[in-house]
Amino acid sequence: MKNIDNKKYNFGIDLGGTNIVIGLFDDDGNFIGEEYYKCPTNANRNYKLILKDMADGCYKILVENKIKITQINGIGIGIPGKCDIKNKLVIGACNIKSLNGINIETEMKKFMDVPINIENDANCAAVGEKKFGASRNYTNSIMITLGTGIGGGIIINNKILPNTEIGHHVIVLNGENCTCGRKGCWETYASATGLIREAKKYAKKNPESKLNDIDENKIYAKFVFDVAEIGDKTAISVIDNYVDYLSEGIANLINIFDPDLFVIGGGISNQGISLLRKVRQTVQKKIYANDLNTKIVQSKLGNYAGIIGAAFLNK
Amino acid sequence: MKNIDNKKYNFGIDLGGTNIVIGLFDDDGNFIGEEYYKCPTNANRNYKLILKDMADGCYKILVENKIKITQINGIGIGIPGKCDIKNKLVIGACNIKSLNGINIETEMKKFMDVPINIENDANCAAVGEKKFGASRNYTNSIMITLGTGIGGGIIINNKILPNTEIGHHVIVLNGENCTCGRKGCWETYASATGLIREAKKYAKKNPESKLNDIDENKIYAKFVFDVAEIGDKTAISVIDNYVDYLSEGIANLINIFDPDLFVIGGGISNQGISLLRKVRQTVQKKIYANDLNTKIVQSKLGNYAGIIGAAFLNK
Repeated sequence: MKNIDNKKYNFGIDLGGTNIVIGLFDDDGNFIGEEYYKCPTNANRNYKLILKDMADGCYKILVENKIKITQINGIGIGIPGKCDIKNKLVIGACNIKSLNGINIETEMKKFMDVPINIENDANCAAVGEKKFGASRNYTNSIMITLGTGIGGGIIINNKILPNTEIGHHVIVLNGENCTCGRKGCWETYASATGLIREAKKYAKKNPESKLNDIDENKIYAKFVFDVAEIGDKTAISVIDNYVDYLSEGIANLINIFDPDLFVIGGGISNQGISLLRKVRQTVQKKIYANDLNTKIVQSKLGNYAGIIGAAFLNK
Repeated sequence: MKNIDNKKYNFGIDLGGTNIVIGLFDDDGNFIGEEYYKCPTNANRNYKLILKDMADGCYKILVENKIKITQINGIGIGIPGKCDIKNKLVIGACNIKSLNGINIETEMKKFMDVPINIENDANCAAVGEKKFGASRNYTNSIMITLGTGIGGGIIINNKILPNTEIGHHVIVLNGENCTCGRKGCWETYASATGLIREAKKYAKKNPESKLNDIDENKIYAKFVFDVAEIGDKTAISVIDNYVDYLSEGIANLINIFDPDLFVIGGGISNQGISLLRKVRQTVQKKIYANDLNTKIVQSKLGNYAGIIGAAFLNK
């Protein structure tokens, strides 16, 4: 019994604009308990209520699994925005505004007194893939998550590069307005949001397209892929353009970094091998001196990458 | 005397498309002799003749300074193109085609049997600035050289990141043709070549502009800056657009990397503080969350950065 009592565990939290997701892991990256804990963020609340809900979730998992707080190495938290990881400050969280300027360590410790680490959520996912996923055996890698925006994490010499915003590099000078204030950022074209915007445009111009089978405001990324899959020409054009935008930014980042591995995560990556194959072909043509040494693969940990990475930020 | 005989020295060579430039340095980065040695590359020759000229230049410097070959730590060579630095192979040198596929270590040792290192020329400049120049006290930095193209070197955790091609990231989707085969690379707009191309276009459209005071084919970058300086509206527009293109790519790289320092080198950087000030103002507006933590400065070592960096590749 003594041995088990001495076993150590790590909390990883993904603090999203919609949900708080909490996982508890042993030092080998195994989930403790059957399922991760999830509750709504209610992002417009005061940050104290949000942090308290996070701590309550952690206590619930501890009780359920009969683990003592003294067995916890710490809590890692993935923040949806820019962080000062050294000082544990949130700098820019667009979707949970009350967090901005808050010292998460100080505030979280009021509810649960264990070591606290924070990191940008996309960086957490990249750390997760590096520790236990697709990029485990690679020295230099990039991981992107294609969602509402494009998050990204860069691993150089086995370490995460802090404060990167790879979604916000301009690929279309004076292009579509981006949430960051610039015009034509990669994210505005290659995120799920970008795909959906273009699908709506194309649907309007092509009334015969099956993209019009559902209400314009209900178009979602997987629907566009599905309609293309059954041969709808308009949807195929949307996807082809999307692949081109996505590949343009991937080729930019590979030219800039020459990583060993490029990992694609987020909802859209669930399109799997057919999307990956198109992306690989398109990127190949764009690489400097046609010398593509970077493997392009799908995320292995999927939705879990972020919480696993958060749990192991300091390992 | 014995002490002086034991002193060690380092050769740094910048192997350019036009000239070979060789410098000899003591371990503190001081030039040996009054001036570096320079001879034409004659880039169309067989690589063996080029390497022999490099070795002959080194021997000349040794004789002139009464230094023995046993006092040489090695030769570092900056290559104008992509390199496999581990295997000392040239992969893609567009301007000295006979070098491609050549193992520089094996071939150079036939003329001078000392340790040989190679690295991309822009990376050499970045290493030079890191060892003895502007970025000496910074952990993460980027250095660009604005010339015929845009070379760039990225230093992460005090080490150069190999095989980067930061000039070849697209900022204008489907823009001007780039020598690399893509369209709209940053280099096609923000290099001296890009500036001159735009100046020619504007000169033609605006016959009253003083840009027409010299023959179209003789327009050079400094001339455009000089004409703008005396108030020529057309030249001012060209420079304003140039600053915008340049800043767009700098902002992209700062968003992607968040380096502590961004160093601008190459001929155009000699425009000094007035150019820097405009670039800083323009970049500031484009940075994610308006959170610019990166200093933007001019190269300190100027034309010497490349040979100093080459000499200290392994230190």
